[in-house]
Amino acid sequence: MKLIVAVVQDKDSNRLSNALVERDFQATKLASTGGFLKAGSTTFLIGIKDEETDAVLEIIKNHCKSRDQLVAPVSPMGGNADSYVPYPVEVQVGGATVFIMDVERFEKF
Amino acid sequence: MKLIVAVVQDKDSNRLSNALVERDFQATKLASTGGFLKAGSTTFLIGIKDEETDAVLEIIKNHCKSRDQLVAPVSPMGGNADSYVPYPVEVQVGGATVFIMDVERFEKF
Amino acid sequence: MKLIVAVVQDKDSNRLSNALVERDFQATKLASTGGFLKAGSTTFLIGIKDEETDAVLEIIKNHCKSRDQLVAPVSPMGGNADSYVPYPVEVQVGGATVFIMDVERFEKF
Ligand code: NI
Ligand code: NI
Ligand code: NI
Repeated sequence: MKLIVAVVQDKDSNRLSNALVERDFQATKLASTGGFLKAGSTTFLIGIKDEETDAVLEIIKNHCKSRDQLVAPVSPMGGNADSYVPYPVEVQVGGATVFIMDVERFEKF
Repeated sequence: MKLIVAVVQDKDSNRLSNALVERDFQATKLASTGGFLKAGSTTFLIGIKDEETDAVLEIIKNHCKSRDQLVAPVSPMGGNADSYVPYPVEVQVGGATVFIMDVERFEKF
Repeated sequence: MKLIVAVVQDKDSNRLSNALVERDFQATKLASTGGFLKAGSTTFLIGIKDEETDAVLEIIKNHCKSRDQLVAPVSPMGGNADSYVPYPVEVQVGGATVFIMDVERFEKF
């Protein structure tokens, strides 16, 4: 038995939840802030059998991998027009930081 | 030293907290959502000595065990009267998913 | 690789965050309640290389150590004047409860 602790961006959190449920993996989500990722993040706790590790890592990678995304420009509110960029810019989104921990004993009541 | 990670239903969370405090076990509660349990859940982190494991598991089991409960019918708000059940129904509540992890080193400052 | 799980008082949380960032340690913060510490607490998850353990523990200790603080008296609202203390009192603030856990495998996507 393993406990996967995965920190992912909020924007990928629902897609990851759904993908895990679809494959019958049970996860608990903790609201987390700052840290490993710049934007708001969600910390997943996923309890799995040892032999499921690679399948779950694959799901996390497929739904949360760091990637570039074009973001439409937002007109500056309340001044600071100097920093206004009038065309879409590429920003990095997503990303997952994943710790696989050994579980000594597991109980369900 | 062990770290117990226990995911329980919100409705059992206070009873478990109180029971742990009564026995002088120190726990930290994290608000968690979805996942192992259908309703809102609370994740407990409980640091214990190895030999206290069974006592703490017993407390968790006694206060959070999955059980059936009679729920009074609620009159349907805003239509959907078709699904209205005019007598109490039995639903499963509670339940705990518990991971016991080994702690390599413990410090208190 | 280790995962440090550190529960600290909310009031020390920002100072600890900043100190970790300054030293390029990546942490995720989880809002937590009650438990190990009387006041509101924040749980830090900090992923580190084995050889960084002592450096991170030192940072936690330096920014969160339990200490005495003088607190100005607050005039009692709505009665209970009996318990009013008209001079500053020393209270214990801060403190950190730290678990160092072994990480079996680490992935970044
Ligand atoms: Ni998908
Ligand atoms: Ni009780
Ligand atoms: Ni400092």
